[in-house]
Amino acid sequence: MSNETIATETTEAVGELPIDELLSDGITNTPPSFVRAILAAASDPAVTSFAGGLPNPISFPQEALLESMQRVVAERGADAFQYSATAGIEGLRDWIARRYNKRFGTDYTADDVLITTGSQQILDLLGKVLLDKGDGVIVEKPTYLAAIQAFALNQPTFHEVELTEDGLNIDELNAALDAGAKMIYLIPNFQNPTGLTYSAEGRRQVREALTGRNIVVVEDDPYGELRFEGESLPYIGGTALPHGVIMGSFSKTVTPGFRMGYILTKDHALLKAINTAKEAADLHTNVFAQYVILDYLEHNDLDEHLVKIRNLYRDQARAMTDAMAECFPAEVSFTKPEGGMFLWATLPEGINTMDLFPKALERNVAFVPGEPFYAEPGARSTMRLNFTNADEETIRDGIRRLAEAIAEAL
Amino acid sequence: MSNETIATETTEAVGELPIDELLSDGITNTPPSFVRAILAAASDPAVTSFAGGLPNPISFPQEALLESMQRVVAERGADAFQYSATAGIEGLRDWIARRYNKRFGTDYTADDVLITTGSQQILDLLGKVLLDKGDGVIVEKPTYLAAIQAFALNQPTFHEVELTEDGLNIDELNAALDAGAKMIYLIPNFQNPTGLTYSAEGRRQVREALTGRNIVVVEDDPYGELRFEGESLPYIGGTALPHGVIMGSFSKTVTPGFRMGYILTKDHALLKAINTAKEAADLHTNVFAQYVILDYLEHNDLDEHLVKIRNLYRDQARAMTDAMAECFPAEVSFTKPEGGMFLWATLPEGINTMDLFPKALERNVAFVPGEPFYAEPGARSTMRLNFTNADEETIRDGIRRLAEAIAEAL
Repeated sequence: MSNETIATETTEAVGELPIDELLSDGITNTPPSFVRAILAAASDPAVTSFAGGLPNPISFPQEALLESMQRVVAERGADAFQYSATAGIEGLRDWIARRYNKRFGTDYTADDVLITTGSQQILDLLGKVLLDKGDGVIVEKPTYLAAIQAFALNQPTFHEVELTEDGLNIDELNAALDAGAKMIYLIPNFQNPTGLTYSAEGRRQVREALTGRNIVVVEDDPYGELRFEGESLPYIGGTALPHGVIMGSFSKTVTPGFRMGYILTKDHALLKAINTAKEAADLHTNVFAQYVILDYLEHNDLDEHLVKIRNLYRDQARAMTDAMAECFPAEVSFTKPEGGMFLWATLPEGINTMDLFPKALERNVAFVPGEPFYAEPGARSTMRLNFTNADEETIRDGIRRLAEAIAEAL
Repeated sequence: MSNETIATETTEAVGELPIDELLSDGITNTPPSFVRAILAAASDPAVTSFAGGLPNPISFPQEALLESMQRVVAERGADAFQYSATAGIEGLRDWIARRYNKRFGTDYTADDVLITTGSQQILDLLGKVLLDKGDGVIVEKPTYLAAIQAFALNQPTFHEVELTEDGLNIDELNAALDAGAKMIYLIPNFQNPTGLTYSAEGRRQVREALTGRNIVVVEDDPYGELRFEGESLPYIGGTALPHGVIMGSFSKTVTPGFRMGYILTKDHALLKAINTAKEAADLHTNVFAQYVILDYLEHNDLDEHLVKIRNLYRDQARAMTDAMAECFPAEVSFTKPEGGMFLWATLPEGINTMDLFPKALERNVAFVPGEPFYAEPGARSTMRLNFTNADEETIRDGIRRLAEAIAEAL
């Protein structure tokens, strides 16, 4: 029956029925990801790309995951292939809560955790459950571009607050809070795009400014376990503020291909709203993948695995900053991350890195211009560089060619 | 480093900072899924539940999927664990296009297909890219409750059009089209919740009413391959109308646990908007699961697998309708599905099936009351019954007990 060919009547596509008239205001105001466009341009194998945000494949424990798959099929059977609960499987939520409690002395339980389809989905869900058109949302300046994209669908008012070497510009933060905002979105560790980390004092100042304000405090922490220098610091909100939300992910520690993120919060009224929004978004996250990740975590030493990743990323980051110190013109400043995957270079004002991009590409090297990381459009003299997905020799060589392109633009 | 316990400062949760003030209008107007609440009530193993929508585990080819996983790890390696393209992998999109072309004589290509995190995600994406507050959306009366939920987040105006034995009430459809709508959402085969299927003539009438209208025509078809009686019929829109969209899924044919759905449309402007919305929603669908499904489809005979499922569901559906004909009071009418997973019973007006639910539960049998399947709230005398997840003896026994509860309510 299903092999029969059934004739379908076809009318001409009607040009007088334009789709543009049907598209929502939200999507019309949401730019497609510029990074994805750049990745296409930089996909030529001849190009050294510092543009992507790809973890090094060394971080994917492929064989151990395959062993977990075999155990999950043997031990869980049909349950691993059936529809499942929206919040995620209990065992994995419990593992996550215990991991945070061990690291931060918190008292999270499985009931405080919800599993999502990558941590990107959390941005989508938070936007939906909090932001009506015109509502205020505070973001770092610059910030993660896909957060801008996810929130933009709800047409909020963005308040950008300058990111400093050790936190936020507190005067700007207080002004944004006074203007009114339902949510503040922060990336306190090895920020994307800058690689900056809030200091203990910087965190304290931000927490103090937020105390007593009715606002959801979101800390996105995909790289927290990838610290290769210095010591871990407590969250700003977390369990310390009433609407504290932590976002986590297995994308940088196990595999991004599984799309496995999670949210931790003690605010169960907020979590219930997020649960309802997730039901409507995709019912639940791939349950087979949840069981596999849980089995992997139970049968392997994640900390041992992380040491490997951290050592690699430390060497790659140093190779990049050493090469930049050696080759870049003195007018260019750059961050020295203590972890994560990115660093940030600032060129003299007046140099638009969007214009520099094609010049660098002529030299077979790619980066992401700063522009898409700002909620406010406009020319920028900044750029993001990823150091996790090229070997040290390639990094040195690519930075040398990028330095040439910059020198020419000065 | 990651094992260290770091003290986190804790302040009291502040009752004067209520989250209700921060929640969006959209989420406040979106009810949590009533079915999920019912499933919890019906999870007692003593209860015969016709309430769920679970495929029979016979439909999960567990061993073949495990073999595919082994091949994917061996053949694809790190690519199967890395970040991937938003639209989905080319091979799977191509397989889906060819399958539809074979079944319906269409000319879809991989470029007309986008892979989603379950077909539920398509409802979310369509709502986002089309519906601003107050925009019209036409739905069947009754319709899939999670579609109401997904669209409701965008606060549209719902126009309900009566579903008939062989299609839609055309007068109501024309009135709804005249009132203005950006999208019409239809489930033409073995509809959820009613089990009804549009006839060839019913499809022709609806297509005629839609011709020349600037409207996105969405046909949700998760059960199309589960036809156990009669012959497949062409879509209403599909390639025949300029903004035709087909929604498909591997949830009922391979596994729901993987959350793997897809959209087919020749409208590339619409598809581009959906691609942007998906980027912001979850970047891409689990790429390992995509490779596994593709490998499974390439190394196994899906049609042979489907015959098994169809035969089982035919027997189960007959067991249920036979038992209903025998036991139910004459005042109760019910549908006789030609495929899918559900049927629909209509009790005499005045009997609220929401009130009947606890009475049935006392007799250890559960169903879904009709109410949540209507966009317009109000008491209903209808109910949805699932026949795919219980054996024939259990079905007969459960229907007998349900008949007793109904007889008592008359």
